[in-house]
Amino acid sequence: MINVGILGFGTVGTGTAAILLKNRKLLKERTGVDICLKWIADLDVTRDRGIKLPPGILTKRASDVLEDAGVQIVVELIGGTTVAREFVLRAIRNGKHVVTANKALLATCGMEIFRAAEKAGVAVGFEAAVAGGIPIIKVLREGLVANRIKSIYGIINGTTNFILTKMTSGKAEFSTVLKEAQELGYAEADPTYDIEGVDSAHKLAILASIAFGSQYSVRNVYREGISWISPMDISFAQELGYTIKLLGITKETDGKAELRVHPTMLPSDYLISKVDGVFNAVYVEGDAVGSTLYYGRGAGDLPTGSAVVSDIADIARHLSTCPRGGYKRPGISGAAMPLLRMDDVRSMYYFRFSAIDKPGVLSQISGILGKHDISIASVIQKERLAGKAVPLVVLTHRARERDVMLAVKEINRLRMVAGKTVYIRVEGKEL
Amino acid sequence: MINVGILGFGTVGTGTAAILLKNRKLLKERTGVDICLKWIADLDVTRDRGIKLPPGILTKRASDVLEDAGVQIVVELIGGTTVAREFVLRAIRNGKHVVTANKALLATCGMEIFRAAEKAGVAVGFEAAVAGGIPIIKVLREGLVANRIKSIYGIINGTTNFILTKMTSGKAEFSTVLKEAQELGYAEADPTYDIEGVDSAHKLAILASIAFGSQYSVRNVYREGISWISPMDISFAQELGYTIKLLGITKETDGKAELRVHPTMLPSDYLISKVDGVFNAVYVEGDAVGSTLYYGRGAGDLPTGSAVVSDIADIARHLSTCPRGGYKRPGISGAAMPLLRMDDVRSMYYFRFSAIDKPGVLSQISGILGKHDISIASVIQKERLAGKAVPLVVLTHRARERDVMLAVKEINRLRMVAGKTVYIRVEGKEL
Repeated sequence: MINVGILGFGTVGTGTAAILLKNRKLLKERTGVDICLKWIADLDVTRDRGIKLPPGILTKRASDVLEDAGVQIVVELIGGTTVAREFVLRAIRNGKHVVTANKALLATCGMEIFRAAEKAGVAVGFEAAVAGGIPIIKVLREGLVANRIKSIYGIINGTTNFILTKMTSGKAEFSTVLKEAQELGYAEADPTYDIEGVDSAHKLAILASIAFGSQYSVRNVYREGISWISPMDISFAQELGYTIKLLGITKETDGKAELRVHPTMLPSDYLISKVDGVFNAVYVEGDAVGSTLYYGRGAGDLPTGSAVVSDIADIARHLSTCPRGGYKRPGISGAAMPLLRMDDVRSMYYFRFSAIDKPGVLSQISGILGKHDISIASVIQKERLAGKAVPLVVLTHRARERDVMLAVKEINRLRMVAGKTVYIRVEGKEL
Repeated sequence: MINVGILGFGTVGTGTAAILLKNRKLLKERTGVDICLKWIADLDVTRDRGIKLPPGILTKRASDVLEDAGVQIVVELIGGTTVAREFVLRAIRNGKHVVTANKALLATCGMEIFRAAEKAGVAVGFEAAVAGGIPIIKVLREGLVANRIKSIYGIINGTTNFILTKMTSGKAEFSTVLKEAQELGYAEADPTYDIEGVDSAHKLAILASIAFGSQYSVRNVYREGISWISPMDISFAQELGYTIKLLGITKETDGKAELRVHPTMLPSDYLISKVDGVFNAVYVEGDAVGSTLYYGRGAGDLPTGSAVVSDIADIARHLSTCPRGGYKRPGISGAAMPLLRMDDVRSMYYFRFSAIDKPGVLSQISGILGKHDISIASVIQKERLAGKAVPLVVLTHRARERDVMLAVKEINRLRMVAGKTVYIRVEGKEL
């Protein structure tokens, strides 16, 4: 029998406990091990979470879990990087295997935690930290172990995907849809963490670390949020055959890794462009397997609990077949791949200029783009309003980020340009 | 060091060898084990496969591999159920772990092989047997181990998906597109195995066995092919908002498992409906994780090789951390779930009747349907051609297979019905 203690009885804690209790017999049949939920620790032991617990397992003291010699696996579902970090390190020091859904913790102090775990000879499972119920960590580390990973494109935040989907289908403003998402419980009262791409950046750092066998931190991720996306840009994108998604992107380019989170225009006929609402999806390209995609719920009590329990089951199975052998998972062990600076990233671009409708404006703008080595693939100008600012939309071939930033700065200073230029990176087939 | 011997140097054998040679260093970094390709056995040792092999590893004698005490893992890539069966059983008897891509072998004599392996304490890996490069076996057995599986819908044959995609986009006849598929190398000279759904049925038997912890054989799978699908039905389906795919379907219904392979009408806005060409995809619904989908290439040297090598890496890692512990994978161990007879399966239906355009025909047909407990959701009759046969299309609510078969038989005998009724099962939201 393997005893499990959960720290944190919130949404994911409740889902994890519910699965361990409900599917205990099934898990025993499948893993050959009886996995027993021994403890749940939370400061609030009175609120009704809607599940019936066996008597005596709820405690206010984390130490009941952390110091119980009978507990082999500690599940950290508290969140944040202070108490959670302390408890995880203490569990590891006490020789316990750890399972966590805490992407912020791993993306900020993953190195410290993995080193401590290696020293103590224990496992750290974190399937639930990225893309909720989608077993993407296992897929990357084991299912695709034969592959040099070429690129990953992930919709790894359900809140922003819900908002962008609703903005697209309803032609609605960001602020309106955000309010709706908050009412539905898909967005927090303070939505910054999601809408500014912080959550996606945490998850991308974890995905890239596994893909490239390096340890990247959230500080290595270039990041833009979605709050400035307008229905007008969504509508131009649609007209051009594109869908706007907040993507986490990591690729190997000439032996360097790029890590970036930003709104991205994707060809609308790509499978990932059709991933709508709160769902997540991760596209992975390997040198042997080619294109693959993994789709499912990125959040929620039971979907995330499903991922937590898969880590518990892996460790439990290992402990039962091989009580003394170290628990090894392929992963962050290879030579670190250096980072490609954002300045050097090459991408296609969508520009929306607020250009005064006068002869010569396109020639001025295209002149500046050309000077910075940015070549135009197509131009749309539909509205005519002589002497007033109208949207001028330009799609470019692949250009270097640094050149684009310089060009935009220069164009924004033109007297014939009335407002700040909007730019959105474009992925997909070469234009 | 772990030594691997491959039996069969065809497409998948070549892909597997290429990956083991090219990514050997990467695999060592990731698994901590040096995986050495020691032997490749094939009757044809002269044909150029386009890869450079180290000297001395190619042999004509399978026994060089099977009797080599230094080989820990034997990879069977011969195909078929005669020689392959014999070699696999011999490898197991000799204490070697086995990796195979042979769905026919597993779906016909899986029980015998898994029993022999259990007795000998060796592993049988078969990730490559279903859906090529998509790690669906690992996902089901490990990633979703926490879940009671509710249903699986799989596009698990690339040939038929290519044909249906082309028939849909080009409004072309089956025979025309089959010829194109043969020219492109996507279909065999004798395409029966693919187009009659035999290949899909093999794979479905394996998926269902894992999902429900039972050992199903291909004989337990109800099966229809796609050769009778016409552009007219594809076009009616599109008009009604559906796409026709050849699906392998397995579900738990009231404690019984249904296993069936047949052309299926799916709502066109479902993600799986958008999986085109030779690509495969498997939709899995679990009681905790909800809806998930896995997409990638279902065939080809390197994609399938990717799956073969992931099995090799799993076994190699296990051997290195835990040389004595038995290799355990969650799987076919639970209580067998009984089969739901096809007669008792409930589904929605699309009917296309060849009805003589005369007053009263719809009333006769709907009368017979009603008598058999089949209620109509919608009717389309567009062509008018008084006194001649015109297509009359009916979508039904959920009905029992047995009732439908009886009703169709009765309707086909009507004097006002000029030809055999076409029926296609419909999945998706209730009508």
